[in-house]
Order: sequence, then C-alpha cells, then structure tokens
Amino acid sequence: MSEVVDKSTLAKQASTRLGALSTQDKNETLLMMAKALISHTDEIITANVEDLERGRAQGTSESMLDRLRLDSVRIEGIASALRQIADLDDPVGDLLETLERPNGLIIEKIRVPIGVIGIIYEARPNVTVDAAGLSLKTGNAVVLRGGSAALSSNRKIVEILHQALKQSAIPHNALQLIEDADRASVNEMMKLNGIIDVIIPRGGHSLIQNVVQNSTVPVIETGAGICHTFIDATADHQMAQDIAINAKVQRPSVCNSMETLLVHTDYDQTALITLAEALRQDQVEIRGCALTRERISWAKEATEQDYATEYNDYILNIKIVANLDEALQHIATYGTMHSECIVTDDEEHAKRFMQEVDAAAVYHNASTRFTDGFEFGFGAEIGISTQKLHARGPMGLPALTSTKYRIYGNGQIRQ
Amino acid sequence: MSEVVDKSTLAKQASTRLGALSTQDKNETLLMMAKALISHTDEIITANVEDLERGRAQGTSESMLDRLRLDSVRIEGIASALRQIADLDDPVGDLLETLERPNGLIIEKIRVPIGVIGIIYEARPNVTVDAAGLSLKTGNAVVLRGGSAALSSNRKIVEILHQALKQSAIPHNALQLIEDADRASVNEMMKLNGIIDVIIPRGGHSLIQNVVQNSTVPVIETGAGICHTFIDATADHQMAQDIAINAKVQRPSVCNSMETLLVHTDYDQTALITLAEALRQDQVEIRGCALTRERISWAKEATEQDYATEYNDYILNIKIVANLDEALQHIATYGTMHSECIVTDDEEHAKRFMQEVDAAAVYHNASTRFTDGFEFGFGAEIGISTQKLHARGPMGLPALTSTKYRIYGNGQIRQ
Repeated sequence: MSEVVDKSTLAKQASTRLGALSTQDKNETLLMMAKALISHTDEIITANVEDLERGRAQGTSESMLDRLRLDSVRIEGIASALRQIADLDDPVGDLLETLERPNGLIIEKIRVPIGVIGIIYEARPNVTVDAAGLSLKTGNAVVLRGGSAALSSNRKIVEILHQALKQSAIPHNALQLIEDADRASVNEMMKLNGIIDVIIPRGGHSLIQNVVQNSTVPVIETGAGICHTFIDATADHQMAQDIAINAKVQRPSVCNSMETLLVHTDYDQTALITLAEALRQDQVEIRGCALTRERISWAKEATEQDYATEYNDYILNIKIVANLDEALQHIATYGTMHSECIVTDDEEHAKRFMQEVDAAAVYHNASTRFTDGFEFGFGAEIGISTQKLHARGPMGLPALTSTKYRIYGNGQIRQ
Repeated sequence: MSEVVDKSTLAKQASTRLGALSTQDKNETLLMMAKALISHTDEIITANVEDLERGRAQGTSESMLDRLRLDSVRIEGIASALRQIADLDDPVGDLLETLERPNGLIIEKIRVPIGVIGIIYEARPNVTVDAAGLSLKTGNAVVLRGGSAALSSNRKIVEILHQALKQSAIPHNALQLIEDADRASVNEMMKLNGIIDVIIPRGGHSLIQNVVQNSTVPVIETGAGICHTFIDATADHQMAQDIAINAKVQRPSVCNSMETLLVHTDYDQTALITLAEALRQDQVEIRGCALTRERISWAKEATEQDYATEYNDYILNIKIVANLDEALQHIATYGTMHSECIVTDDEEHAKRFMQEVDAAAVYHNASTRFTDGFEFGFGAEIGISTQKLHARGPMGLPALTSTKYRIYGNGQIRQ
C-alpha cells in the first residue's frame, strides 16, 4: 500500500473513536499539544532551518521564505492558537432538532464529526498545527499534505504532536502527515472516496483549482475574492472614502479586500477626486473606465481583464456606472460571490443590493474586510467558503461537522 | 455553443430573479403547472406512447417500461405532487441567525436559493416534474437531463410546463431540459462550474457513481443502502421479528430496506428459527455464516461478496456475532452509512450503537424503512443523502438552499 492509502486508512480507523470523546478530553489534548510545541521550540527551529536552507539553495523568493520561517515568537503564536481553539464551544453532540412523529418515533438530529478531513496546503507550517487543532477539536481525524518546501518543519511538528497525543485521550493515528513530496500523492488523496470524507484546499488559486477540478472526494472550496464596493449617488462622502480606503489598503493581499470600486455617475465629483487622491497617497495605482479617466486625469486605463483580476495588491479598478442596475450587473459578471458592499443613504437601493447580490457576504455601509471568522465572532476560521453547499462565507467549527439522525422507537414498523 | 452550455446559461440568467420571488407567486406557479399537466393529459400520453413503442422495439424490459409508462392516474399523481409542494413552507428568506458585534455591525444569516441545480436521472418522467417543482419552490433554476428513453415524454411535459411558466411570475428559462441524448451532454453538464451550482444524480448505482467520479461541479450523492438490523441478546422476540421482516420485505427494492441481519449469538435460538421460517414464508432466500447454517439448516452460504451487496431483492444475509463490538465492526466494514438498527432492551448497548454507528440514520427498536422524507415529516424528499457534507439523510426543501450573510453597518472599517 502507498503511504497515502496507508496513513489515510489509519486515520479512518482512529476517527471512529473520536466522536465519543468528551469536550474536556479534547481540550486537554489541545493544551498538551500547545505545551509540547513550546517545550520543543529549539528542535522545531532546527528543522525549519533545514527547510529554509534548502529553499534558499533552490532560489525561493524572500516572501515565500518569510511565510515558511519559524522563530520562537511565531511558535508561541501557533501554540496560542491551539489554546484559543481549546477555549471554543464544542459543536459535536449538539442536538439541533427533535421531531416527534404521530407513530411515536422520536427523531433527533445531532451534530457529529465529519470523519476524516484531508487538508492540502502550501509551505506554511502554521497551517499544519491550525488544521490539526481545528480537526481534532471537532472530533475529526486529519490527513495533512503540506507543501514539500516545509517538509522538515512539518515532520518535526507532527512528531512532537504525536508524542503529545500518545499521552492523551486522542489516538495519535488521528493525525497523519503525508511526507511523499511527489505530486502523485496529492492526486491519490483526492480519489480516496470512502476513506477521506472531505478535502479542504488552503492556498493560492492554482492549488485550489487543482483540487476542485480533480478531487472525487467532496471539496470545500475557499479562496478567490474579487470584491467590489459600490458608492451610490447618495453615499456620505466621508463614509464612502473611509470604507473604500479600508477595503483596499488595510491589507490588500487578502481575499476580502476590494479590487474594483464602482461609483454612481451622480456621486459628487469633488468627493471622488478627493478619494482618488487619498488612494494615491496610499500608493494605490488606479485603473479606470473612460468616464473615470475624464474625472481622474492620472488614472490608467482598465481593461476587461483587469475587472476579472484578483490583484491582491495596491491596484484598484474604478468604474463609473449609470445606476444601481449597472453596478449589480458588473458584480454579477466579475464578482466571485465572496464579499460585496454598497455605500448608500438610499434605503431602497440598499435593500435591493442586499437582496440581489449573490455573494457569501453582502455589506451595507461597512468594509468588506470584515468577512472573517474572527470578525464574525466565531473564534476560529477554517477558511472562507466561496461555494454554496455545506458552508458559505467564514467557516467556524460547525463547518467541520456533519449531522446524523437518531431514531428511538418501541417496535414501530412501516405500513 | 452547445445545447448544454446554452440552456444552462439561460437558467443561470433566470436564476438571479428567482430569489426575490414571493412565496405566493411561487405557489401559484406550482398550481398552474399542475393544472396545465392535467389539462394536457392526452398529449402527454401520446408522447409517452412514442417512448414506450421505441423502448419495446429496442427490447426494453417490462419493469423498465412500467417505470416509464404514464396514464391519466399517474399524471394526476404527478400533478398532485406539485400541489403538495405548493403547500409546504418556503425556506427561502428564513433568518437563521443574527449576530450583533461589539463594533455595532449587525450580521444576519439568511436562507437563499442555491442558484442552478442540475438533475441527472433515468427514464422516469415523474422525476422531471418533481425535480422542477422542488427546485422552483426553493427559488432555484433547474437543468434537467433525463434518460433518453423518456425523451418524448419529457419534451412534451417541459413544453407544457413552459407554457404555464409564461403565464407566471417565474421566468420560463428557469426550467431547462437537455434533449441531447448523447452521453457527452452529461459529461458537459458535470463540468459547468460557475454556471451550475450543484448536481444531484437520481437513479441507480452506476448513474450515481458516474456523477460522483466525474463531476467537478459539487454533487449531492444519494442512493446506495446496505442496511443492517442487529438483534441483540436481550431483544424482545416479537419486536425483533416484526422489525426484521418489515425491514426486509415491506419493500425490498428500496435503499432503506435491510440486506444483512446480525444476530447476537445468545439470542434465543428458537426465536431465530421462528423468524427465519417467517422470512421463508415471505419468499426470502437466506444466506448465512457458518453458525447461522448450523442453526438454520436450510440457509445457503453467505460470502464476503454477499455482505457487500445491495440486493434490493428477496435475499437476506444472516450473520451470528459474538457481541455488540462484532456487530459494530461488521457495520463499519460493509455498511454504506445509510440506515442501521439495533433491537435491544439493553440501554447501554443501545446507547453505544446510537453513538458509534456512523450512518445518516441510526435506529433503536424501529424499522430502517422509516428513513424517508415523508416519514420524517418533511412533506417532500429530494433524495436521501449518503454523504456527510451539506445534507445527510432524507433531504427536504432546506437541502436545496444555501445561506448568505447580510451585514449592516454605519461606516465601520476594520482596524
């Protein structure tokens, strides 16, 4: 048997025991895992240096190396995330519904773990710990396949976590790391229907699309965000400027930042120029439609391709639209159903926008940057689902659970 | 453009208007659709005769032809199902949760339509109407690809439904029938990510597996049921017999019927023989393990393959197990996570079974035949999900919805 099948099968076997674990047992385990990481900080850093040196020898970019790098502060942060997960409410076992049928059957709908979660991700060792913590807290076994550039770090981290699990109520086989660096191991994981219950890809566009296109195991798609802010004719100028700037520059590299600003043609032209100047001061390059370029002389030209691009950078498209319908149409065409915002004082326009825009999160008078599990108060975030099944928008712990019906009778048979 | 892309795109365009429709508008449309089918009964029967004659000429089996056949009674039944769907509560627009954040943001989680639902099914014209009704009631557009053996019937039915939709609040493009009989049209549908939001296969094992294996669009898997009943040592004899016989013979052809009976070795041997005789009187062929064959002399031998087979027929495996653990192990190995039952008076055993068996529906002292949307009181059934994401077990209308977050602010930006 291959490593993938072998380890995934062990994870599945372990998973059958996890659903019955008490919340206390799971939380104590998470705290033990955090403690183990802290007390083995030096070993983790040594392993991480191997990855960094190999990366540097292979010419890996500095920004990639930075994402890969671990130091004692970062390891404390990773351990701290485990402690935070321990603090969260445990959704497993929640009674969601009770149905009493005329024939006397009592039907209970209960939250249960999904089973085995596969995570395919890039060379970010923090994801190794985070995914393990979230999965185990929700009673799931987890099979991790991280980017091979972080293999030494991941191997050491999982070795340490395994030692902690061996002292705990959770069977250590519930946590598996695929070490095979070959791409074939990813392909194999994606076909393990019946062993792995769901695959969650975490990473950039091409990683996610590879999983979506090739996995026969169900996938929770996360990621791409081409988010818009629409400044309506009646928008408060200061509020519109604050929200637009926040959505663009507070953290341009993330999926809930704004890529295109839509502005009603009747919006005050001086206010628009003031906003554009403020963006320019924040180093934002502006690409505009023809009307935008008439109003903002220094804007470059925006192409169709630009409207369809997730820049994740200090670049912004601006398009002047004739009315709400044109804004809605633009969002329907170019949006990725992630986060969309209208700034307006017109209640009727707000109502239509909130109703008609098809996205995970739709905002009236607030920045799209709030689409986030922590900002929503979930206390954790597995990712932001951009699909419509199972979970949509920021995913907290319940997104890692399924349900089951328990039916209690006293001899009922069907007529 | 191909027929599939063309019609699916029209469905997607139409879908954007469906979320805002009132429940009353949707219900009136469903009643108009029902009325139209009744008043065009003769035309439907004429079209159906074409399908039947073509089928007969091609040597289609009588049981297949029976599933394909429409007469005035069956058409009344199909129309009546639409009226029942009109009577059901509309889940769209339901406010599922309201979160108030410290920064003043109000976050509402609302039920919304999924968008465009693709249904791939066999030559059963009743599914054409049922799937259309369920999808439109939940504000979804629907792309139907039925078995080509029912094409004349389906074409006529959709023509009649389109006429009804043209008088209604629902754009007729929300209902699309793929007429291309080539298998390539199915393959094309399964790759339309971004246009079709979910595919639900309805039919036999090979149809469903083809979709699960090849669709890049998310799938809701329904179907296969290898269901077990475990008679514990302490089970009431009459109750055990009633439940086992009901689970096997009340309707053997369906997915929630029993395929294997597990019996505790300490269960009364006379009671077991009485049960076996009763099954034999109901024409059930029994295949048993070695111990079973010692106790029931006329039982045939059960092979490993038998335990893994969904007979959907008057055949039953019986296996004697040493204890609850062996029963749980057998179910974990051969079950399809559909419906599983324990008959016992031992509360501790019942509790473990209900907790540890990983299935959509787990029963204590009741027949597995109750796993059904109507029996659960949902008033409709899109199918029985055997997967763990999005929906599990019998699916009512909410399974055809997604959610969206609406966030209301007064200028909040992220710090």
